[in-house]
Amino acid sequence: TEIENELKAAISGGSDGSNSFNGMSRDTFRQAVVNTLERRLFYVPSFKIYRGVAGLYDYGPPGCAIKSNVLSFWRQHFVLEENMLEVDCPCVTPEVVLKASGHVDKFTDLMVKDEKTGTCYRADHLLKDHCKDKLEKDLAISSEMAAELKHVLAVLDDLSAEQLGAKIKEYGIVAPDTKNPLSDPYPFNLMFATSIGPSGMSPGYMRPETAQGIFVNFKDLYYYNGNKLPFAAAQIGQAFRNEISPRQGLLRVREFTLAEIEHFVDPDDKSHPKYSEVSNLEFLMFPRDEQMSGEAAKRLCLGDAVSEGTVNNQTLAYFIGRVYLFLTHLGIDEKRLRFRQHLPNEMAHYAADCWDAEIESSYGWIECVGIADRSAYDLRAHTEKSGVALVAQEKFSEPKEVEKLVITPNKKELGLAFKGDQKLVIESLEAMNEKEAMEMKATLESKGEIEFEVCKLQKMVTIKKNMLSISKETKREHQRTFTPSVIEPSFGIGRIIYCLYEHSFYMRPDKSGDEQLNVFRFPPLVAPIKCTVFPLVQNEEYEEVANRISRSLTAAGISNKKDITGTSIGKRYARTDELGVPFAITVDSKTSVTIRERDSKDQIRVNVDEVATVVKDVSEGRTTWADILQIYPAHTSASADE
Amino acid sequence: TEIENELKAAISGGSDGSNSFNGMSRDTFRQAVVNTLERRLFYVPSFKIYRGVAGLYDYGPPGCAIKSNVLSFWRQHFVLEENMLEVDCPCVTPEVVLKASGHVDKFTDLMVKDEKTGTCYRADHLLKDHCKDKLEKDLAISSEMAAELKHVLAVLDDLSAEQLGAKIKEYGIVAPDTKNPLSDPYPFNLMFATSIGPSGMSPGYMRPETAQGIFVNFKDLYYYNGNKLPFAAAQIGQAFRNEISPRQGLLRVREFTLAEIEHFVDPDDKSHPKYSEVSNLEFLMFPRDEQMSGEAAKRLCLGDAVSEGTVNNQTLAYFIGRVYLFLTHLGIDEKRLRFRQHLPNEMAHYAADCWDAEIESSYGWIECVGIADRSAYDLRAHTEKSGVALVAQEKFSEPKEVEKLVITPNKKELGLAFKGDQKLVIESLEAMNEKEAMEMKATLESKGEIEFEVCKLQKMVTIKKNMLSISKETKREHQRTFTPSVIEPSFGIGRIIYCLYEHSFYMRPDKSGDEQLNVFRFPPLVAPIKCTVFPLVQNEEYEEVANRISRSLTAAGISNKKDITGTSIGKRYARTDELGVPFAITVDSKTSVTIRERDSKDQIRVNVDEVATVVKDVSEGRTTWADILQIYPAHTSASADE
Repeated sequence: TEIENELKAAISGGSDGSNSFNGMSRDTFRQAVVNTLERRLFYVPSFKIYRGVAGLYDYGPPGCAIKSNVLSFWRQHFVLEENMLEVDCPCVTPEVVLKASGHVDKFTDLMVKDEKTGTCYRADHLLKDHCKDKLEKDLAISSEMAAELKHVLAVLDDLSAEQLGAKIKEYGIVAPDTKNPLSDPYPFNLMFATSIGPSGMSPGYMRPETAQGIFVNFKDLYYYNGNKLPFAAAQIGQAFRNEISPRQGLLRVREFTLAEIEHFVDPDDKSHPKYSEVSNLEFLMFPRDEQMSGEAAKRLCLGDAVSEGTVNNQTLAYFIGRVYLFLTHLGIDEKRLRFRQHLPNEMAHYAADCWDAEIESSYGWIECVGIADRSAYDLRAHTEKSGVALVAQEKFSEPKEVEKLVITPNKKELGLAFKGDQKLVIESLEAMNEKEAMEMKATLESKGEIEFEVCKLQKMVTIKKNMLSISKETKREHQRTFTPSVIEPSFGIGRIIYCLYEHSFYMRPDKSGDEQLNVFRFPPLVAPIKCTVFPLVQNEEYEEVANRISRSLTAAGISNKKDITGTSIGKRYARTDELGVPFAITVDSKTSVTIRERDSKDQIRVNVDEVATVVKDVSEGRTTWADILQIYPAHTSASADE
Repeated sequence: TEIENELKAAISGGSDGSNSFNGMSRDTFRQAVVNTLERRLFYVPSFKIYRGVAGLYDYGPPGCAIKSNVLSFWRQHFVLEENMLEVDCPCVTPEVVLKASGHVDKFTDLMVKDEKTGTCYRADHLLKDHCKDKLEKDLAISSEMAAELKHVLAVLDDLSAEQLGAKIKEYGIVAPDTKNPLSDPYPFNLMFATSIGPSGMSPGYMRPETAQGIFVNFKDLYYYNGNKLPFAAAQIGQAFRNEISPRQGLLRVREFTLAEIEHFVDPDDKSHPKYSEVSNLEFLMFPRDEQMSGEAAKRLCLGDAVSEGTVNNQTLAYFIGRVYLFLTHLGIDEKRLRFRQHLPNEMAHYAADCWDAEIESSYGWIECVGIADRSAYDLRAHTEKSGVALVAQEKFSEPKEVEKLVITPNKKELGLAFKGDQKLVIESLEAMNEKEAMEMKATLESKGEIEFEVCKLQKMVTIKKNMLSISKETKREHQRTFTPSVIEPSFGIGRIIYCLYEHSFYMRPDKSGDEQLNVFRFPPLVAPIKCTVFPLVQNEEYEEVANRISRSLTAAGISNKKDITGTSIGKRYARTDELGVPFAITVDSKTSVTIRERDSKDQIRVNVDEVATVVKDVSEGRTTWADILQIYPAHTSASADE
């Protein structure tokens, strides 16, 4: 897995084709985007007047509208289209749920503290920064040292607390701000902890993901679906991660919106009825083998990837295809979108297969959607912890002969041997799976006794041949009971939106050529405002027409904004381009008006009475701008914009 | 204010016209609604497999769809219609923000503890239950005692910790579960506390309302709006309240969705440009005077209420009118909706006027929307705490002569008198408002000196006449700077939805008359699913038609569900009525199908190709069922349903 890791590190940088960044360097490009976003209130650091809190951001008006559009489209594309069962569960979650899911014990990052000031750092970040810095800046570095540092970067995610601590000591890494020595690394749980109710006796956490709310409701949802598989449940909501030291702006934050789907399926049949609707799609995929042999991501036909066994099953592939369609419809550039398969060491031990939709941004390739086949792990964990069986049944059309393991304890002998411990011993014996039981049977037959661990007694006991019988019997069964597998597409909405900002942003010269103007080329589906309405000059008649148009747009549910300032029309177009508004209506007469399209700057002339319908149809995708250009006369003006 | 309180207690019970509850008692009715809601997964207690957490609920699929529909309509009706600036801020909030807003110090309920078990209770709840119980069940009670208990109930909300404690002792109230003695009442802060970041040094809370996120962004939002007033910002999001002991099901919960509007306005001009659009509305209002004189709520014309001074200003009235339209569009029964004005003792000291939209449910009249003129309180509080001026400017069209207070300290004399304290004394003198300053001037002129409190020194000092000059000067000013007033409509989305469930629920006999069937009469706007599609009998051709119709409905964005079980058509109608689905399409031929309306059970016959459009148009309000009945032939069947 070290080789895997080195490869992973090598690929995570992403291509540096500078044309992705409008001919600018990554940093310059990012600064241009972020400046525009903050100045136009797409987002701002939260609680700014109090100097803010790292990792918390507000969506201002345009950002909030975009988020709402993205979520509406998500509901249409996934929930409505697939008849998913959408639920809405609280953020406040009692400890027992997150104990069962493993978050209380394992949702941690390794942290070091400045020994004098107490300032906290992520141990892996410090080590990473040190290695990168050395490699970039230390020209005198030996080739052995360079190789070692590269190796450390590659295995960073797999290092234990002890290994991280040893490297930090070995390299003499100190607190970056004070140069003070650092503590040993220790795990810090990333959940925001709280207490439910007034007693202080009911610990709780702000959920780190929305998925658990679905799992604990499995039984009710299965019933709601007529006790039939497959079905999917979905949830949109806030999730929380108390990052040690948030970095990367909107990409790593302490509170974020997740949209998650849990698709429950029979583990013996992961076909999907609508698979054929996506199997012909072709896009960039980056299978495990290509990563490990140092090749690049490549365009694959999804259907081929399934038939060649690269993607584990049809249902997983179906969601990969649907995610591809979702992201490209939003305006993500398909050339900078890839589906990367997890390497074996990245994947949870229980997962059958896992693919991330990664989007290339100025920060490199960013994981924005994870699509994982988590097998039966989650439902089993909650079944065990809660004692409520989260299982499904398949009724056979006719009864089947099934071989069943039968373990029959001899209570008399067991009672004599174990007295008060008898009950726990019997429980452990009965809980053996088929493999364990058949091994025990073989040993008892050959040797007459066997050492057996009783977990709840925390000791080994000796089981003799006369204490139980183990056999296989054939039974007629009318149904089978099983724990469904779950396939989980999980969307980081904020990350998708940030990448969308970068993919949509470009600059173009103004008329004079002196100034570069910013434009977001959002598709109408996403655009925060669909249309602006400008009276060409300040005059009561034009303003009245503008008001009438604005009111009919609003009544039709099309978000719009009037700009009745006396600013030049060119400046008003520029303002609106910077918000990504796709259409602008300019009122220059009482009977007809012009509509301008943002990216082409093409203008057409339309009657006042028709204009709201035309803009509604093109905003909602019932027609295209190309179609409209065919129907309505072009308007050529000498306006400041052209 | 005690009289006010007694009146308030008397009116809070609500009318008990039993026809409001389908001819059932309140409790029976509520049980019928709640059973249906839980059985059909409109909502369920959260984390049920772990025995749940009081005050936390999940919205299951139909509840979640209804919530999403209510919020979409809210966005259309308020945000889009009024061009509001919608924002989206985090739930995790640093302490300083909630210190400024007053929540850290004052957002508390009084709590008592079982002295042996530590179980916590709300002190006022125990006292209330005791008084009610006595009044209802103790027939031997003296008329003096009865009067006292009624009085206690009336003033309950105003009792201090000491007064509550004294009453609990006096009446011998003990812990209800154990009969153990109780502790003295003490305040318990209702915010969920947490810690931001790993240091443990940055206390934070889960926000108790969304409003603060808007206030701290005032400066940016004002700029975004072109530095113009009035404008409104809006936010939808989760809010949290760590209730001591939640009661009343969905009405008092620990986590809930709020939709809040903060409309910023010049305190000297609270007119509203669209006021005339609501001023003719008539609905139930319950002004302060009517409450205090024991009269009932009465139908008032909103415009009259403003012109008679009952409602403080046009903007407040505009929002009252818009809230009325919003709630009745959702399906709230307007006869069971009233706008109640706060009595003086209910209102925060800074508030100019406040009205609650109250909806009558089986729990009585429930506050679902608060519409408050909060004056400049919030912006001032954050200005003071953050040091950032959250103010607006009005530019005068021509300069104005303004009389200004001028306070000029004589630093030499003050220095001699106060030495090191001089700076703080000067600060306090300069901070005097006009009234204070003119009083000081008068006293200094008549007596030569005055005692003056310097807050930051926490002492009184003697100011002499030669230490400062106070005068009024006339200045020419080009603009005025002021703190805007804020008018805040705040919507408890979960409460509105619960009341909507009660108002929409009814029962009717099945065909045989043996069984009562449940129906929710949700308008299409709200209905969780707009349409079901049933093949009349199980047969491949009908199912193919049903699939085609379902796909065209989905493509048109109309949520729909197929039911292809072999159950009788009457049973399938009943199932779908219970979910409040307004339309059902039954496929009984390959060329035409029937559409059935839920409440009238009327059926019409429509061609297969037309049906999706017909259902879409009536679901989205472009046509009505009455219109459709005129156009398409009625279908009279002998189906099980009729």
